[in-house]
Amino acid sequence: MSNILVFGHQNPDTDAIASSYAFDYLSKKAFGLNTEVVALGEPNEETAFALDYFKVPAPRVVTSAKAEGADKVILTDHNEFQQSISDIRDVEIHGIVDHHRVANFETATPLYMRIEPVGSASSIVYRLFKENNVDVPRDIAGMLLSGLISDTLLLKSPTTHASDRRVAPEMAELAGVDLQEYGMALLKAGTNLSSKTAVDLIDIDAKTFELNGNAVRVAQVNTVDISEVLDRQDAIEEAIKDAMTTEGYSDFVLMITDIVNSNSEILALGANMDKVEAAFNFKLENNHAFLAGAVSRKKQVVPQLTESFGA
Amino acid sequence: MSNILVFGHQNPDTDAIASSYAFDYLSKKAFGLNTEVVALGEPNEETAFALDYFKVPAPRVVTSAKAEGADKVILTDHNEFQQSISDIRDVEIHGIVDHHRVANFETATPLYMRIEPVGSASSIVYRLFKENNVDVPRDIAGMLLSGLISDTLLLKSPTTHASDRRVAPEMAELAGVDLQEYGMALLKAGTNLSSKTAVDLIDIDAKTFELNGNAVRVAQVNTVDISEVLDRQDAIEEAIKDAMTTEGYSDFVLMITDIVNSNSEILALGANMDKVEAAFNFKLENNHAFLAGAVSRKKQVVPQLTESFGA
Repeated sequence: MSNILVFGHQNPDTDAIASSYAFDYLSKKAFGLNTEVVALGEPNEETAFALDYFKVPAPRVVTSAKAEGADKVILTDHNEFQQSISDIRDVEIHGIVDHHRVANFETATPLYMRIEPVGSASSIVYRLFKENNVDVPRDIAGMLLSGLISDTLLLKSPTTHASDRRVAPEMAELAGVDLQEYGMALLKAGTNLSSKTAVDLIDIDAKTFELNGNAVRVAQVNTVDISEVLDRQDAIEEAIKDAMTTEGYSDFVLMITDIVNSNSEILALGANMDKVEAAFNFKLENNHAFLAGAVSRKKQVVPQLTESFGA
Repeated sequence: MSNILVFGHQNPDTDAIASSYAFDYLSKKAFGLNTEVVALGEPNEETAFALDYFKVPAPRVVTSAKAEGADKVILTDHNEFQQSISDIRDVEIHGIVDHHRVANFETATPLYMRIEPVGSASSIVYRLFKENNVDVPRDIAGMLLSGLISDTLLLKSPTTHASDRRVAPEMAELAGVDLQEYGMALLKAGTNLSSKTAVDLIDIDAKTFELNGNAVRVAQVNTVDISEVLDRQDAIEEAIKDAMTTEGYSDFVLMITDIVNSNSEILALGANMDKVEAAFNFKLENNHAFLAGAVSRKKQVVPQLTESFGA
């Protein structure tokens, strides 16, 4: 019998890997499903830190469900098809656990879909363990905590939900770590950009959104020093222009996020800079502008772009 | 402060009315929301029987959220925009409880979405009461039971889920009714077609599906005698043709469902009868054909049409 593949989005971040890893475990324990966790890409440095810390092997990387002999899938931390596995339209979607807007998604039959406007898919999965009376092992608690910390920048992002603040200390206790200390160590592990080429950097955490017929790429990098990233602006712009040509993006919006002070610099290139400027009510100078208090792509960038593009 | 409107789909059936009525109560009790239940149409005869039995007033009918001063809505028993309120694209969707496929749906921001492949939206709402430790009053238990009975033809439809069989006797006890006896009385209340004009009949429980660019109307009527309905074929076909012209449907598929023997006769007209015949592997004669064992539009008709239309 073929497995049900469980995976997060392309360019997986810590929440994508953690939520899929934990939901795979829960699916076997609580629902008796024959699942296998996989990933649509290699872990980034932050995720690698968490996997190493909790001694969890990185899920193997796949590019097609059919090629793995699977005709059913479970998605975590995403629902839009262009962020999913290449043959998503050819398989049955058995279930979804996510915390994003719903778009570019449809099924022929009913499914299990659990979407909540909370800080991370990991925090939903954690509550599903509790709802189903399944104990959370230490390594899974640690990964889920890492997913929540990563997506909410240690509970500082406006996407943080009241329920996230309640479960974070529980998860930290189960994982045997100090929330603040582990949290800062995890986030800092993701800010080591010096070892990255500009091409790698713009792809660490990037998603494509279809906005009124435009393919808008929105990428985010975390740093403790925005100016260090801007020092590499020329090389980054070159990488962005190459990606736009190769992948057909109409626009590329890079959030350079200061995780200590919770602000972002926006670097943007493309055909619709008037719409980008209108979205954030700022003027790009030399292709970039400061966005005070912005740390969340989902809450402080994508809805504004969606509205401005008239999507 | 504006209310959040809670409602089921257009042409409301018993599950649409029951699930929205009960979820409105739960939203106030458990989530502290300022909600108001409304409906996108008058109750049908079956629903009127249930409302009357449990002394529940019919929700008032609205056609626009904005006109009611509401900019947020909660949908039950549907998600496809063409089955929803007229200005669904102009308001924020706060939440959804549903048991259908997901299609023609998108949001700009994250939301609460609880979809499960079970027999009725009512049975999900019933379990949400339990999850949130909210007592189910007798009238609400009765309405939710009615929604479940209606959508599963008293637990006989293949859409019936194991969890539906578990909760149905609980709901019956809370409602103070005998499951079988009340169930048959409810279903029979919906089969009184003699008082209906042909125009009314094809609109009792009808939904439009966008299949590969075609607007396909799929309607269902319940009866205890299929031949009684077929006796009116000429008038029904005339009503169907009028509806196709007026509303722009490419095709119209009417399920005439025998609730005693659990079969359906399919009466179909339109531009794509080759695709309808291929979907069910039958030949229409005089525009109709028998579909043994078919009682569920959702499970035994719409997916087959979706595949055959190549949607």
